[in-house]
Parts: sequence; C-alpha cells; structure tokens
Amino acid sequence: MIRYPNGKVYKPSQTTQRNHKKDKVELSKSASNRGMDLENDINLSNEYYRDKDIALITKRPTPINIVKVDYSHGARITDAYFEKQSTTDYNGVYKGRYLDFEAKNTKSKTSFPLNNIEKHQIEHLKKVLKHGGIAFFIIQFQAHNQVFLLDASYVINYYENGERKSIPYDVFLKDGIEIKQGFAPRLFYLDAVEEKYFQ
Amino acid sequence: MIRYPNGKVYKPSQTTQRNHKKDKVELSKSASNRGMDLENDINLSNEYYRDKDIALITKRPTPINIVKVDYSHGARITDAYFEKQSTTDYNGVYKGRYLDFEAKNTKSKTSFPLNNIEKHQIEHLKKVLKHGGIAFFIIQFQAHNQVFLLDASYVINYYENGERKSIPYDVFLKDGIEIKQGFAPRLFYLDAVEEKYFQ
Repeated sequence: MIRYPNGKVYKPSQTTQRNHKKDKVELSKSASNRGMDLENDINLSNEYYRDKDIALITKRPTPINIVKVDYSHGARITDAYFEKQSTTDYNGVYKGRYLDFEAKNTKSKTSFPLNNIEKHQIEHLKKVLKHGGIAFFIIQFQAHNQVFLLDASYVINYYENGERKSIPYDVFLKDGIEIKQGFAPRLFYLDAVEEKYFQ
Repeated sequence: MIRYPNGKVYKPSQTTQRNHKKDKVELSKSASNRGMDLENDINLSNEYYRDKDIALITKRPTPINIVKVDYSHGARITDAYFEKQSTTDYNGVYKGRYLDFEAKNTKSKTSFPLNNIEKHQIEHLKKVLKHGGIAFFIIQFQAHNQVFLLDASYVINYYENGERKSIPYDVFLKDGIEIKQGFAPRLFYLDAVEEKYFQ
C-alpha cells in the first residue's frame, strides 16, 4: 500500500475494476478539486506508468531540516522545519532518457505567474537541458480546466528575460501541449512528452 | 553555501586552491573516517560534477513522515519519523542518460552483505534497467580502502538467486570497476561510469 503525504492511498485494483457510474460522480468532484489535486494526480499517474512498465518517475521527498531527534523511543523527530526544494519535484527515466519537471497550478485565466518559481529551480533546469535531459513544466490553468506541458526553455526565457514575471496563457495554447485528462492515468502527460520530444 | 545533513559545508574555492602539505594530513584523516564519509564524499563529488558542468546528479532527501506541525510560529514540525527510502539515494543525468544508484559501505574484507538492501530498492533498480537507465551500486570496502562501481544487475542477481545473501569481494575485483579516489572530486565515479557504460 502506498501512502501519499496528503494521506490518500493508492489502490490500483479499484482503479482498474472501476464502476462507470461511480466514475461520473468522481469526475465532477475531481473537477472542482483540481487545484489541490494536481500533485496527487501526477503521483497517481506516476504509479500507473510504473505499474504498466511505461516509465519510472518519482517525486523527490520534501527536504526537511532536522533540528532535534529524540532517541528515547526509537528515532523520533521533535523539532524540524521544511526547506525549499532546490531542484524540481519530479524526475525519472522514460525510454532511456532523463526526465525532470516541476508542476504548478494557477487560478489566473490570462497568464502563469512566475513568482512561485525559485531561482534555484531555474538553474537546476538549465543544467538538465545542458546535459541532454528533457526538462519541462506541467502547468494547470484551473479556470480553464486545462493542463499543459511547456518545455523548460520557455520558462527559463520568460524568467530571465521577460518584462512581466508571467507567461501569457496564449503561449501555452501556441507552444505548449495540452495534456489529456482521464482516470488511468489521471494525466496522460507522457503522451505529451512523446509528442514533444520523441517525434 | 551548501549545507549537508551532517552539517558539513561545501567550500569549492578551498578545495581548488589547496595546500599540498595540508592535503596529506587530510588524506590520512580522511582514510580513517572513510566509512562514515562515503555519503559525504559522493555529495561533494556531485557538487564538483555540477559546478564543472560534467553531470547533474542529486541526492534524494530522506523521506520523513510528518505527524504533527505547529503553525503558531511559522510551520514547525514537532512530531515526525524517518521513513525507509523506497527508491535509491541518488539519480541524475549524464550525457543525456538517466543514472540511478545506491551507495553502501562494508567493514567486511571478504564480501558485501545484502541485508541492508531493501526489496523496494531492488524492484526500483530493475525498473530503471527496464526503461534503459544506467543503474549501479557504489560499494566501499573500508578494510581495503577501495570503492567499486558494480552494475545493478549483479546485485539484483545475487539478491534474488544467491544462496548466501552477500556478494564476494572477488566479484568486485573481477566484474566491478574500482573508483579512483582523490580530492576534486573525492570519488571519480563518473570515470567508472564512462568506462563501463559509454565505451
């Protein structure tokens, strides 16, 4: 059994032997919760891709700085705090290639703001590209119920050279690839990877 | 400035402009501490490879299960415990290829015991190989002051089919590649990767 940080549990058998009436209810529920569920959807998609032997992509654990550990009953952490991820959240291997990406969502209808992207992450993605890896962002526009793959080079360029610290929605329509949404996987993001980098 | 979990600090300028007399002292000191320092040596080597634009390899943070967070002064974790890594400790990209490895040391002179390798890690490495990634172990024999790269397929084979739950030292001499040790990087493990997988 796999437990995610949010406490949800991955149950592959239930996903596979699914009830189609139940699916409809889940679809509408899921649509309203999409913002909070992007990470969960990607995690479930990664489980699916792993179970089906399509790719191996994992989420890096959140780095935590440990201040105090109590060893009186095994090792119990009693004081610690969250650190900022200096890399991206996800990486892995697909058809021998190295994949590296970050996922973000926005409520804006018109653009994706870059203020919650760290300079360290931009530096990290530049290195990925330099070493021949595949680097991208998965960006969810909640208001449009759309999820896009956008190559990291666009984000790097807007981050470093853009006058406004955001990427217009139109750029995603023009140069991004919309990711099909479903149940298994939740996000068919490797279809977008295939289209963008393997054809 | 980069701080490692053990509190040590990476200072690239000091490493580069080194004093050769001081190096000798550090060498003997370092040799006696090698067991505890394997992780640190790999981290420093990864910093070196990143700074020199040779490769991008990162350590996955230790996964921690958070039980309680106190939000009264920012987010402070007040109860948590360590989880076992279900993957390996390191992955990254080198010349476009996906690299994935685990590092272990042993005090045994005659074999590397497999009892501290998790079944999850074996499953993970099998998947890496299946998807065309490069998977290996970095094994340090403290008694011999030697560090080897051994392809993951050997470890998987001994783990699943071996009568004894260990890999004889002779196997490392015959089929492993000894990793050159130095100062920058501490472990020239990408030379071994180059020799094993790129020639």
